Amino acid sequence: MNVHGVPYRTIRLAGDGWSVEIIDQTTLPHRFELHRLATLEQAAQAIKTMQVRGAPLIGATAAYGMALAVRSNPSDESLDAAARALGQTRPTAVNLAWALDLMLRALRPLAVSKRVAAAYAKAVEIAEDDVETCRAIGQHGVALLRQAAELKPGEPVQVLTHCNAGWLATVDFGTALSPVYQAFDAGIPIHVWVDETRPRNQGAALTAWELGAHGVPHTVIADSAGGHLMQRGAVDLCITGTDRTTRTGDVCNKIGTYQKALAAKDNGIPFYVAVPHSSIDWSLTDGIADIPIEERDATEVTHVTGRASDGEVVTILIGSPGSPAANFAFDVTPRRLVTGLITERGICPASEAGLLSLYPERATVSSPP
Amino acid sequence: MNVHGVPYRTIRLAGDGWSVEIIDQTTLPHRFELHRLATLEQAAQAIKTMQVRGAPLIGATAAYGMALAVRSNPSDESLDAAARALGQTRPTAVNLAWALDLMLRALRPLAVSKRVAAAYAKAVEIAEDDVETCRAIGQHGVALLRQAAELKPGEPVQVLTHCNAGWLATVDFGTALSPVYQAFDAGIPIHVWVDETRPRNQGAALTAWELGAHGVPHTVIADSAGGHLMQRGAVDLCITGTDRTTRTGDVCNKIGTYQKALAAKDNGIPFYVAVPHSSIDWSLTDGIADIPIEERDATEVTHVTGRASDGEVVTILIGSPGSPAANFAFDVTPRRLVTGLITERGICPASEAGLLSLYPERATVSSPP
Repeated sequence: MNVHGVPYRTIRLAGDGWSVEIIDQTTLPHRFELHRLATLEQAAQAIKTMQVRGAPLIGATAAYGMALAVRSNPSDESLDAAARALGQTRPTAVNLAWALDLMLRALRPLAVSKRVAAAYAKAVEIAEDDVETCRAIGQHGVALLRQAAELKPGEPVQVLTHCNAGWLATVDFGTALSPVYQAFDAGIPIHVWVDETRPRNQGAALTAWELGAHGVPHTVIADSAGGHLMQRGAVDLCITGTDRTTRTGDVCNKIGTYQKALAAKDNGIPFYVAVPHSSIDWSLTDGIADIPIEERDATEVTHVTGRASDGEVVTILIGSPGSPAANFAFDVTPRRLVTGLITERGICPASEAGLLSLYPERATVSSPP
Repeated sequence: MNVHGVPYRTIRLAGDGWSVEIIDQTTLPHRFELHRLATLEQAAQAIKTMQVRGAPLIGATAAYGMALAVRSNPSDESLDAAARALGQTRPTAVNLAWALDLMLRALRPLAVSKRVAAAYAKAVEIAEDDVETCRAIGQHGVALLRQAAELKPGEPVQVLTHCNAGWLATVDFGTALSPVYQAFDAGIPIHVWVDETRPRNQGAALTAWELGAHGVPHTVIADSAGGHLMQRGAVDLCITGTDRTTRTGDVCNKIGTYQKALAAKDNGIPFYVAVPHSSIDWSLTDGIADIPIEERDATEVTHVTGRASDGEVVTILIGSPGSPAANFAFDVTPRRLVTGLITERGICPASEAGLLSLYPERATVSSPP
């Protein structure tokens, strides 16, 4: 998507043809900075520190990280060590394991001398697959927004989203926001309620930034406000992304998604989740029991970073000094609360039968990612 | 309650015997500062800027504000103008209208020469009533915590609360936290999950501060985390305060309370609301339709105040510059989601029959506050 009129992706090969250029998402919205990854360690660090984040983008970054590792050392041992190092960066998004598995399967059978070229080719393929997947999710999802618009002519469709599942969370286009961009570009009147998404404020910092850059009308709200808005009829539908969705349709996503789904259910508002195939964990059937929930550093809760009136970006303590905090990064929304899953192959019910209707090739396959 | 070992109330007559001393809650937890109110205008401003906040404390401050106004001019016109000015400061908490009504009823019939002494006497009476009410709420509520403790010997009772309904929200003792303090003082093992309560962070800034000062174990969490904790069995019961509860048991409270009640319901966790009689609006039957929801300045969402590493208290922009924000300060939790109301007269179901069982004198009275 465009930044100040210049097309960007969140990750791409740098001009040197081998190192990797990312948008540093820890400095947004205050500074737009590109950052260069030249080693496996830098790629792993970028994932861990959330310079790149969003399940699909984590997967793509892991793929490029493997390519960087292989470029430095194409041995079997190096491959395995790289997959281990990258695999340990973050526990929840299944796209990470998915991308690493694809890379290992592509590279292991090859002679060592062929691995560097193959690794870059596969990483680029994974990134391109994400772009096309997100574009297709938008094409399917926009139908929902068009239907909603037809029910209220002349009024904007009111969408609520949580966290950032826009183009910044993917290689391009986004998952949950891809239908929003396509609707906006098609002239469908639309307005997005943006949950700020504490503790890291990906909604206020990233979703608001990218919607604003594209000109999409939006309003940032506290994470506590969505239920109130739904109760008052100010939300037509919710769309979020996912970090891991089980084969049965349980949705793991940014902490707070579950509460939004409960509010949507209580008010009869459709709650959709945009799910690229790379975010489906075909090996799991019980999201609450089986998906590991990342716990991040408590300072993300106790401290906030932003821009002071003098323009300086500072980090401040917002709570009571000495009070402990806990920082659960994700939660699981049971499938009973999800109206439908928007995949690149179409929209289906949040159930095993629903997903298998779109991915019949998975009917008998249930291996770990 | 004690601050550094010294007993304080949130509001009291100053040493001069006529002006009013408050704890300035806008500077907590970073600075503990007392602030003196000497005029009606200063009292109204203290409520509006949330130097004092919390429904019961707003009521007590309004009462003292009336006393300050009468001291300056005891005429009928002055009385009415003062009640109007104070009544317009904040729309949602019914305690404000309740206290003003009590003051007007006490003062209007009196000769002008008797009004100053009577106004101070009535304001002190309202404040003392709040202290005793909160103490009694704690005595009734502690039974719930004792029961919960008996179900899990040796383990702490896990309470989740939202916003601040502690002693800072009242004249003393608190509403939702009064049972917590009494349980802690009685040796019942207890731990409180403290919703940080964006946008103004009353949980992280005030509840954590006062629990920490009293030594009560607690952990601050993002407002989005409560549902996840309940889903994982980490919460035994929820207790919140209220800014206005209808005669039918609908509960208006800080934005986000509704989402917590939904999560509690979904997980079979009791959800209690601590309700002093001064927060019951006997004139209303439908909380969602009838209670005015305050909308505050959007900068409370876009900006956050805290302490920088150099010790300075600064305000920073956390979101994307230019993105609009909306700031709904309260929401309404329908009575069907509320397990019970903890009042100073006992615990009752959240229903008209429940409340009337404790307040039978209200059965035929339904005048506006």
